Amino acid sequence: MNRINALKQIAFEQKDCGFLVFNEYNMLYFTGCQGLACVLIPEKGNNTVYVYNVNYEQAKGEAKGFEVELVKRGENLIEKIAKQIKAFNIRKLAVDALSHENYRNLARKLRGETRLKIKGNLVWELRKVKDEKELELMRKAGELTTEGMRVAYEVIKPGVKEFEVAGEIEYAMRKCGCWGTAFETIVASGVRSAFPHGGCTEKAIRSGELVVVDIGATYHHYRSDMTRTLVAGKPSEKQKKIYDIVRLAQEQAYQTVKPKAKAGKIDAAARKIIEDAGYEEYFVHGLGHGVGLEVHEPPTLSPESKDKLMIGNVVTIEPGIYLVGFGGFRVEDTVAVRKGKAEKFTNGFYSLEAEK
Amino acid sequence: MNRINALKQIAFEQKDCGFLVFNEYNMLYFTGCQGLACVLIPEKGNNTVYVYNVNYEQAKGEAKGFEVELVKRGENLIEKIAKQIKAFNIRKLAVDALSHENYRNLARKLRGETRLKIKGNLVWELRKVKDEKELELMRKAGELTTEGMRVAYEVIKPGVKEFEVAGEIEYAMRKCGCWGTAFETIVASGVRSAFPHGGCTEKAIRSGELVVVDIGATYHHYRSDMTRTLVAGKPSEKQKKIYDIVRLAQEQAYQTVKPKAKAGKIDAAARKIIEDAGYEEYFVHGLGHGVGLEVHEPPTLSPESKDKLMIGNVVTIEPGIYLVGFGGFRVEDTVAVRKGKAEKFTNGFYSLEAEK
Repeated sequence: MNRINALKQIAFEQKDCGFLVFNEYNMLYFTGCQGLACVLIPEKGNNTVYVYNVNYEQAKGEAKGFEVELVKRGENLIEKIAKQIKAFNIRKLAVDALSHENYRNLARKLRGETRLKIKGNLVWELRKVKDEKELELMRKAGELTTEGMRVAYEVIKPGVKEFEVAGEIEYAMRKCGCWGTAFETIVASGVRSAFPHGGCTEKAIRSGELVVVDIGATYHHYRSDMTRTLVAGKPSEKQKKIYDIVRLAQEQAYQTVKPKAKAGKIDAAARKIIEDAGYEEYFVHGLGHGVGLEVHEPPTLSPESKDKLMIGNVVTIEPGIYLVGFGGFRVEDTVAVRKGKAEKFTNGFYSLEAEK
Repeated sequence: MNRINALKQIAFEQKDCGFLVFNEYNMLYFTGCQGLACVLIPEKGNNTVYVYNVNYEQAKGEAKGFEVELVKRGENLIEKIAKQIKAFNIRKLAVDALSHENYRNLARKLRGETRLKIKGNLVWELRKVKDEKELELMRKAGELTTEGMRVAYEVIKPGVKEFEVAGEIEYAMRKCGCWGTAFETIVASGVRSAFPHGGCTEKAIRSGELVVVDIGATYHHYRSDMTRTLVAGKPSEKQKKIYDIVRLAQEQAYQTVKPKAKAGKIDAAARKIIEDAGYEEYFVHGLGHGVGLEVHEPPTLSPESKDKLMIGNVVTIEPGIYLVGFGGFRVEDTVAVRKGKAEKFTNGFYSLEAEK
């Protein structure tokens, strides 16, 4: 309910306002409940979740503090909401996200009596600042992810297949209580390690090849994100040299993470080191992104970002160098912005060499 | 390229047409490539994929037969596309899906020179009919899923935790070459089995409790979906009785799956059996849904559905009975509509009792 009140404070400037939530993660954030059709938050009146029959009983049990409205077979959801909007006498309705078709449909049903505006950013203002309870779950998600990485270092050997490594990592995270993976596990070896989203295939890892392992555990809906780059067998001098640049870039950027830091400056701290080493054009993405209920959230850490870090932000720090035909390097941790020093939720395993 | 040609045939009624693809699965379907920003298919001119720097090199290697356009740092994607639409002299542009904001943005940039229409259903017309290559991948995804279910029957015992069961299932599927899970694994025991989307928690399974196991493997991007209901220990008479109703409903519905069958009639075949047994109000969802690159696709099998089955459709058949406070029952297979008899991609393990 605190979250709803916070939303009302930033969303409702005057009377007769309402907020309609369609995004599934926003609904989860406000209600703690999955599988809803939408959530209506009026300035005055009961906060209401709309849910189809399939998830009705679960919502009744879990969406505490909300009216639970069943959307019956054959009932039109948009029509049903429009009726309630009129009943609540809402004149200004903000919506977090809508497809063009649903927007047009809802606008038509409201017949100009209610003004409709898309205001997705408002919910992000709330979601990007995690409270202590959220940070606790994300810390645990980070621990589970780190455990997965420990296993990656243990099992990566010449001859092992990429998907076998993924299987061992995910199994280890599950055994420690993980709820699932935060995104599709990446174990990309050889030339495919040069693709930041190289996936995970049937390919066997060969001795001396670079392997980019990018993994994340989910815990109570909260996610984590961690990447390490390692070599099965003995790394070459060139591999070591480039790895050290990426590792240094990551560490330097991490040192600049603090409240009020400009996201663009944190990106620049890493980019400068890669630039000085002559690899600037091979760092083909931003330095990082927020993490939370989703794996990609605000704030964004990139050269173009206008974001400023705030206490309670959780972001990734993940510089990379990708050489097509040779291989890729990325080192990533999930990091929380705290009052003093930033806190790493994922940590350790910074060696380029897999266990021998 | 066959898929692009098929789209052109159904989408372009006259000259000067174009199709813009934003949905990630539609892009994957047409290009075989992930991580794209959008795909532009003009009536005349080169089919073009737009991609940000992070996935540019991968797209160049994998999006065969397409122009690959880099969206540079700071470049506006919508603006860039609008320019190309003008260059191609496209007067009628269909789009598969757009948020309201992007629609308005694009429409503004096109300044009325190009007519814009949302036509998401056109791509579904193609995607819902799987070719032999797709069916082969889905058959394999089904085999992997069935292997996961075999393990579920093996490991579910009193005292085992839900997430431990999920871990063993996913590990077994991965070891056989699965690319990942098709959706969040459900292992819902006891009263939570009565929630169709009951998830998977830290709860230990108790003797005599119902356990709904709903799992899916992904193989080369194609998904599968399978549910079984079992009891750790000895099932009660009531459990056996209700289980038999659900199992019979599933089998009867499966028998009606054939080309040109009405989706509503297949749903009715299952619903009738549950109705006759007096449990109609506890079957709280439709009978099934299409499966493919996504886990929920057309056609829809429900009382309201106007769909008709076609050769190459792949659908789930999953009747259920959910008794709040007692527990839930669901039996589900992924089934392909073939020329003769329907083919089950998931199969076996129809016993209510876990291995002893």
